[in-house]
Parts: sequence; C-alpha cells; structure tokens
Amino acid sequence: MNGAESLVKTLLASGVDTVFANPGTSEMHFVGALDSHPEMRCILCLFEGGTSGAADSYFRMKRDVSATLLHLAPGFGNAFANMHNGRKAGSGIVNIVGEHATHHLAYESPLKGDLDGMVATVSQWSRRSTDAPSVARDGAETVRAARALNGQIATLVLPADTAWTPAETHVTAAAPAPLHRPEPERIDAAARRLSQLGAVLMLGRHALFGEDLELAARIAAKTGARLFSDTAISRLSLGAGAPRITQLPYAVPQKAAALEGASSITLVGLHRPVTFFAYPGTSSLPEPADCEIDDLCRPEMDISWTLRALADATGAQSTAPAVNDMPPPAVPTGPATGEKTGLALAALLPDNAIFLNEAVSNGRNYASALRAARPIDVLGSTGGSIGWCLPGAVGAATACPDRKVVAVTGDGSAMYTMQSLWTMAREGLDVTVVVLANRGYQILRGEMTNVGIRGYGANASAMLDVENPTLDFVALARGHGVPATRAEDMETFARALTDGIAAEGPSLIELVCP
Amino acid sequence: MNGAESLVKTLLASGVDTVFANPGTSEMHFVGALDSHPEMRCILCLFEGGTSGAADSYFRMKRDVSATLLHLAPGFGNAFANMHNGRKAGSGIVNIVGEHATHHLAYESPLKGDLDGMVATVSQWSRRSTDAPSVARDGAETVRAARALNGQIATLVLPADTAWTPAETHVTAAAPAPLHRPEPERIDAAARRLSQLGAVLMLGRHALFGEDLELAARIAAKTGARLFSDTAISRLSLGAGAPRITQLPYAVPQKAAALEGASSITLVGLHRPVTFFAYPGTSSLPEPADCEIDDLCRPEMDISWTLRALADATGAQSTAPAVNDMPPPAVPTGPATGEKTGLALAALLPDNAIFLNEAVSNGRNYASALRAARPIDVLGSTGGSIGWCLPGAVGAATACPDRKVVAVTGDGSAMYTMQSLWTMAREGLDVTVVVLANRGYQILRGEMTNVGIRGYGANASAMLDVENPTLDFVALARGHGVPATRAEDMETFARALTDGIAAEGPSLIELVCP
Repeated sequence: MNGAESLVKTLLASGVDTVFANPGTSEMHFVGALDSHPEMRCILCLFEGGTSGAADSYFRMKRDVSATLLHLAPGFGNAFANMHNGRKAGSGIVNIVGEHATHHLAYESPLKGDLDGMVATVSQWSRRSTDAPSVARDGAETVRAARALNGQIATLVLPADTAWTPAETHVTAAAPAPLHRPEPERIDAAARRLSQLGAVLMLGRHALFGEDLELAARIAAKTGARLFSDTAISRLSLGAGAPRITQLPYAVPQKAAALEGASSITLVGLHRPVTFFAYPGTSSLPEPADCEIDDLCRPEMDISWTLRALADATGAQSTAPAVNDMPPPAVPTGPATGEKTGLALAALLPDNAIFLNEAVSNGRNYASALRAARPIDVLGSTGGSIGWCLPGAVGAATACPDRKVVAVTGDGSAMYTMQSLWTMAREGLDVTVVVLANRGYQILRGEMTNVGIRGYGANASAMLDVENPTLDFVALARGHGVPATRAEDMETFARALTDGIAAEGPSLIELVCP
Repeated sequence: MNGAESLVKTLLASGVDTVFANPGTSEMHFVGALDSHPEMRCILCLFEGGTSGAADSYFRMKRDVSATLLHLAPGFGNAFANMHNGRKAGSGIVNIVGEHATHHLAYESPLKGDLDGMVATVSQWSRRSTDAPSVARDGAETVRAARALNGQIATLVLPADTAWTPAETHVTAAAPAPLHRPEPERIDAAARRLSQLGAVLMLGRHALFGEDLELAARIAAKTGARLFSDTAISRLSLGAGAPRITQLPYAVPQKAAALEGASSITLVGLHRPVTFFAYPGTSSLPEPADCEIDDLCRPEMDISWTLRALADATGAQSTAPAVNDMPPPAVPTGPATGEKTGLALAALLPDNAIFLNEAVSNGRNYASALRAARPIDVLGSTGGSIGWCLPGAVGAATACPDRKVVAVTGDGSAMYTMQSLWTMAREGLDVTVVVLANRGYQILRGEMTNVGIRGYGANASAMLDVENPTLDFVALARGHGVPATRAEDMETFARALTDGIAAEGPSLIELVCP
C-alpha cells in the first residue's frame, strides 16, 4: 500500500464514496489507487469547474460530502468559481489536489504555481501532506473538516511523493466537533422579539427545507413574524404542502419594499442580507434604518437546535404552519416569455423534482410561480458566479438518482461550464436541461440602466449581447452526446419538457425567449 | 469624466487599444466608458479563460500588451489557468478587475471573495485603486508594470466607486525601467565556455525568433556550441530559412539523451530546464551530473543585449548561421496518425503562418517535422495548463490580422475553453482549428505507465478515456457558429486543411487519429 491507497481507503472508511475528478500526471498514483477500489464512484468532468459545482450540489442534496480530484494550481484555479459558490452555499467539499513531488518544487517547472495561495483563497481548512505515513491521518482530518461547522471547503494538497511512497494504514474520520449554540438569554430575547409588530424571521442553509423549515413556519404562525429567505438560497422547499416563505427579491427597490415595515430581523443560518452589488447613492442594506438586526444563529452554528429552542420558547411546537395550497396553473400557450416559462414549470415539474434555477434574468420570478407546483426542492445561485447550474445538475442527480432533476439556465451562463452535459450523458444522469436563449447577458443590460447609463453603442453591445453568431444549443448538446430540441412557443416547450421528464437520462431544450 | 473613463483614456494614451472582456455588474461603468471610445477594440469572450489566453498570445505575437476585463474574484479565478500560462511565457498582460464598491466590502455579499489573494497568486505586480482621482495614475503604472522586465502579469483592482466617481485627467504610461544586463566578466566567461567541447547554448523568450535567434545561431556556428530551446516555448521560428535549434523533448529519457555529453549549459532568457513532472527514482534534472549550469541572462534581463555582447565576445557577428533547408515533405496518405499529421502540416502550412500546438501527445514530434515547412512561428504551451490553444488562437489572430493562424489541439484540451470558437466567428478571425480526436487523455495513459502502473480497470479508464459518449466536434463547432468537417484519413484531412487555409475566417477540422 502506498500513500495514495491509504488515502482512498481512508475516504471510503470515512463514508466518502464519490469523487468528481479531473486528474493530471501528478495524480496518477491516486488514480491507480482509485482503480483498485471500484466501490469508489469516479465521475470524470472535462473541466474542473464541473467537479466543484457537482460537489457543491451533491452536498446540498445529500447533506454529506463528496470529493474532488484536481491537478495543481491551474486545476484548482479552474475549480475556483464553483468552489466560491459552494463556500457561499455552506457546502462541505473534500478537495484532493495533486502537487509536484516535494523535491521537484525546488525548480521552476512549467506547472509550478502558488498552489497554497490558491487554496487559501477559498478553503476554510487546508493541509499539505508532508510524508506518506501522514496521508491517511491528513485525509481523515480533511473529511472531518469538510463536515464541520455545517459544511466547509476542506482541501488536502497531496505531493506526488507522499502518494507513491509506501504507507501502512488507513484512518476513519472522527465526527466533527459539536456546533455552537446561542445562549439561552438570546433565545428568550428572540422569542419575545418575534411576537412584536414588524418582526421578521430570516432563514438560511438547511433551515430552508425539511423539518427545520417546518419548525420555523410554526414559529412564524404562532408569533405573527414574517418568514423570509435571502435572495441567494442553497436549497429551498417549494410547491404544494411546503411552508410559505418569501424569497427576498434581487433588485434593490423590490428588496427594500419586501422589508418595508420590518422592526427586527432575526437571522438563523445566514449573514445579514445585503444588496448583490452597490450602486451610486444607494445603501447596501435593504432594511429600514431603525430595524434591529440579531444574528442569533450564524451559518456555522447549530441551526436545528436553535429552531427547536425558539419553538419551545414561543410555544409553537404544535402550531400549524401556513403551507402552499394553490392549485397548479394551466400550461400557458403562445409565444415564449420568462413569466410563462415559470408557469409552465409550475404546471409540469413532477413530484419530488430537484429544480436548479440559473435563469439569471428570467428566473427571478420562478419562486413565486413554483409555490403552486408539486412538492420540489429548488437549488439556487449562492455565490453569484455563473456557470454553477449544469455542474450542479450533475451533483444533484448523482446524489439523488431516484429524483428527476430539471435545470434551467440562461444562455450566457450555460456557456461557462457546458462540458457537464457530457458527464450527464456518460453517467446516464436523469437531468432535463432548459436553456433560456435571450441572446445576451440580459441582466447586464438591466444593470447598465441601474448604474445610470441609458442607450449605448457598438462597444457596449459587443459586451452585453451574445449574438452574431447565434449560439445553436441544440448542436452544442448533441456534440456533447445529449439529445436536444428547440422551442419558440409554449406549446412546443410544454411537449418537449413533458417528453424530457418522461424519458430517463439527460436531454436539453433550447427555449428561445426574450 | 469619471474614474472609469479616465482609465480608458489612460489605456488608449498609453498604446493599449485592445481589451479581451468578460464583464459583470461591477464593471458596468467601465463598459460605459469603453462604449464612448470606439477606438478601443472590445472582444467579448464567453468565459474568462478566453480572455487571459488571448492576451497571452497577443503579447507573444505583438510584443506589446493588451488588457483583460474581469469580474471580481470568481472571474479572476476562471482566468487563472491561462494567466499562469501567460506568466510562464513571460507575457505582459494588463488585467482590469472590477471589484465591489469599497463601502460594500463591509458586508458578506454573494460575490465577495478573496480577490486580493487570487490576484497575488499569479500577478507579478498589482494595485487596488483607492479613489477615482488615483485611477488614471494607477492605470498608467499597471501598463508600465506589464511592459517591465520583458513582460509581466500586472493587475489593477478597480472598486466600482472609484469607477463611477468623477475624475479629471488621464495619464500616459512611462516607459519601463531599463533591463538588467550580465556583468562583462560573465559575458567573457560564457564566451570562452561556449567554445569548449560539449557546450550548450539554451534560449528562451524572444531569443527564439527574429534577430535574437539569428544572432544566437551565429554564436553557435562560430563556437560549435549546440543550440537548444526548452521543451516549453512561448514562440519559436521554424521552417525554411529559420536557424536550426533543437527543442528539448518532453519525455525524461529523451530529454536526458538530448543533453548527453553536455559539459555546460549557458542559459539566455530562461530558467534551468527540468522535467515537467517528477517520477519515482528519477532526477528532476535532465543534464549530466557534472554539467555546469550558468544562468547568464535570466528571463527578466536584457536578452537582446546579452546575445549581442556574446556575439561580439565570440567574434560571431558575421558567421553564417546554420538554417533549415529541407524541402517540404509530400502530403501523406492513408489512415491518419500523429506522425503523418505533422508531415501534412509541414507540407501545407502557408508562408508566415502562426501555428499553435496543443496536440498534447501527438504534437511532440511536430517541431522536427516543421523544420521542413515554409517559414512559420510556432506558439507552444508554457505553463502546462491545457486549454490555452483556442484562446491563444484568438489572441494571435487579433494581433496579426494579416497572417493565417492554424491551431492544433487534442480533444481533451479542446474541451476546456471551447467558447473561443464563438469569439473567432464573431470577430471573423482567420483561424483554422484542427482537433486531434484520440478519444482520451492520451498523455495520461502514457503517464500511468511512467509511474509504474500497468494495466488498469474501470475507474482508471473512466478518468483517462474521453469516450462514451463520443464527442462530436463538428456539431460543437457549428453550435459555436464555426463551419466544420471531419476527416479520418490523410487525403480528406489534406483537402480540408487546404480549404480551411484558403478560406478567410474560422473553420474546424476534427481529425480522428489514434
């Protein structure tokens, strides 16, 4: 056994059985070790952004960690954007990054780079193995760190010599340390505050689905507090029977309007909400000036315990939560629009679907339409870096092979990490992809207006329009091995979506939509 | 005028008239300023790796800097891999990175990340603007830094408020400081050493083309020293009439064999050569143990002056250099192979073509075949991070609109930054792309053997083969708006390559090749 195999055995013994991989030469011994352990599922991504995006959404759905396998500094660089999104989602990810053999780092080889610097920019925990006998323990601590504090980016740098040198044992990761909890006085104060006029209870992380969301909805029903999520959500339960919760809008005026009259915001599992961007003469903070902010339970603290304690303190344990009970809408007809797309999704998404929303401009209103859908989970952008949706669909479908995944992306965002389509085809993942083709960075056209620029010429058009030539997403999908079709009206779209949902395996619909 | 416009005016006044852009919201004022200056050429890349790869090869061909426009930490992350390649090539690049407004950084907004940390990993020079009146001066110093020391990665972080706040002037970049030169005694010692048995003169950076290469070849002819480049080359003159020079092979045994008998290596414009990777029981250094290494002129020093001084000291100024004089080969026929592909390129590349070689496994022998080509410039991988070739073709064709660009890439490497095809189509760039489809990471199959792993199973195959499904590069190219065809034999390939070269604008050939 060498260091690489001691690490693979450590991962498996610690319950990490899936690796999203884009290896290079410095990882060949690790690849060899994976090869002798077929119980580890190895999923090749043709670009590193596919590995980190998949590992992020794998965690969001599975609530446990997978691994990525990356190559040196440039490989980690390519994975950075979706690692950033994963960090903002609070996802736990175990990164294994192959590095040059320690003695080789004395020289200016082509691939030598500031790997430690890269790793430090986004990892909440990291370690560099120094010798083969330490690799198993280092691996186990990496897994433990990735599971700690509700989920962290944990990165192990594995010099090639520590992988190829003999090692003797493997190690099983210990359970992470218990989470911090708010002091009892703060629970009591929050319980009192939630019953006051204008109180808002705002939730993040895993308080947005399952039992935690239900408990929060009981508290809201009992106290009269309004229930919100931030604009960015890692995973949110929507559709029939899901507790009613309002997702803060993206645009600054609407965001402020949603919080009008808020006397206090009690935060459970998230940082205080701010605007996505700053604008000249506009505050970064959306709430009224005199609104009290209480970061009762920060994202890395014990969210479930906090909600139970709040429910006890408010006497809400047996209060019925307000739940969505709207009937599904009819399938819209006629020319495609963003609004109609949301209604069509609400009508057609199947029970228990996982819905990924990266329709950057058109998708902002989906949350309200999808309250009338069948019960679903929605995954959203958390870090604002586009190109997470297609990799995210890979991770969600890998984590939940029995659930249908529907991924809606803009055309601009689809172009960042399209290689994930090939991984869907190879792994037979049950994903229906919808590309909303508005032929541009529609959101930036709006942002030009937001920053006060009206009317523009050739250079701005060149940078905001994705046209001339027109991208053909049907050809692009087929080139990656995924069957595809195009729709320009809602009837064709509804048929294609119904077919895609009925089929097993991946398919893509290009919906031409202003 | 605001800070953004003062920066655009500064860039133009300083001779920077091309920007490879992938902007987001925090760059909207800069986009607005570009829009009012149509004399700045703005080229949209649909992924940030396209911007850095294009700026790298733009510098290699133009010998002057262009700018990139990037969005916050994730945007810089996506650009990192090709920025790494550019740094290793010694390319000067001016990066403009939009950042949140300064006051917005107090909050945990979705896109907030460790931008300064990211920038520091790969930039040789960087600055963060603190207020609008400083932006012009900061921009001028960024341009100066990018041109300094033969070319550097220079990055200006531009908080949105410094872009949107009024500013008054623009600034013209000063010339960079003079380059360091070797001491006269070291020149004399090197001149004596080059005449000794077994002497090697090894060249890098801009000593590999033009007058510098010719001068080095005169020195070699006069002294009897052997002339080498390292394996990685930023730009190398090849074909009829180009001075004869040997590119060090990639594989360790061949690399060592090439340097057998070397008594000294005199380095001009490069770091000492090492193996790409380390292997168990193998030295990182390819030269004989008793070989003397003299880093006479480091990459950031005055390469042209050093060669002139060496030519004077050796009396080589009027010695005729040895040049390539082989007749072009016949176009091969029959089933496609990597070797035949090199011969076909040698036969068919037009006079003055720019040839980008990212055929990772098949392309290793092209350098020797291409000695018999018409006169061409060859651009190669410098940092070992795949995915530079298609962006590189964009940059080379932008820098040299009157020259034909032919870019040969492996199928694995083509999948990293394929969005560049769309930019070629939009800008009408005169590029013929050849994708060598061997359906796998062929180089890694070899590396598995190199590290001692023989025979492998499902998990290793899953990570080394790019098959199941087969990528259809003809469909992928057409999806990006680029006409394409497929060839499986050399006759079809030769026809397609001839047609591609004859046509203006981009085209792609998928050559199925073991």
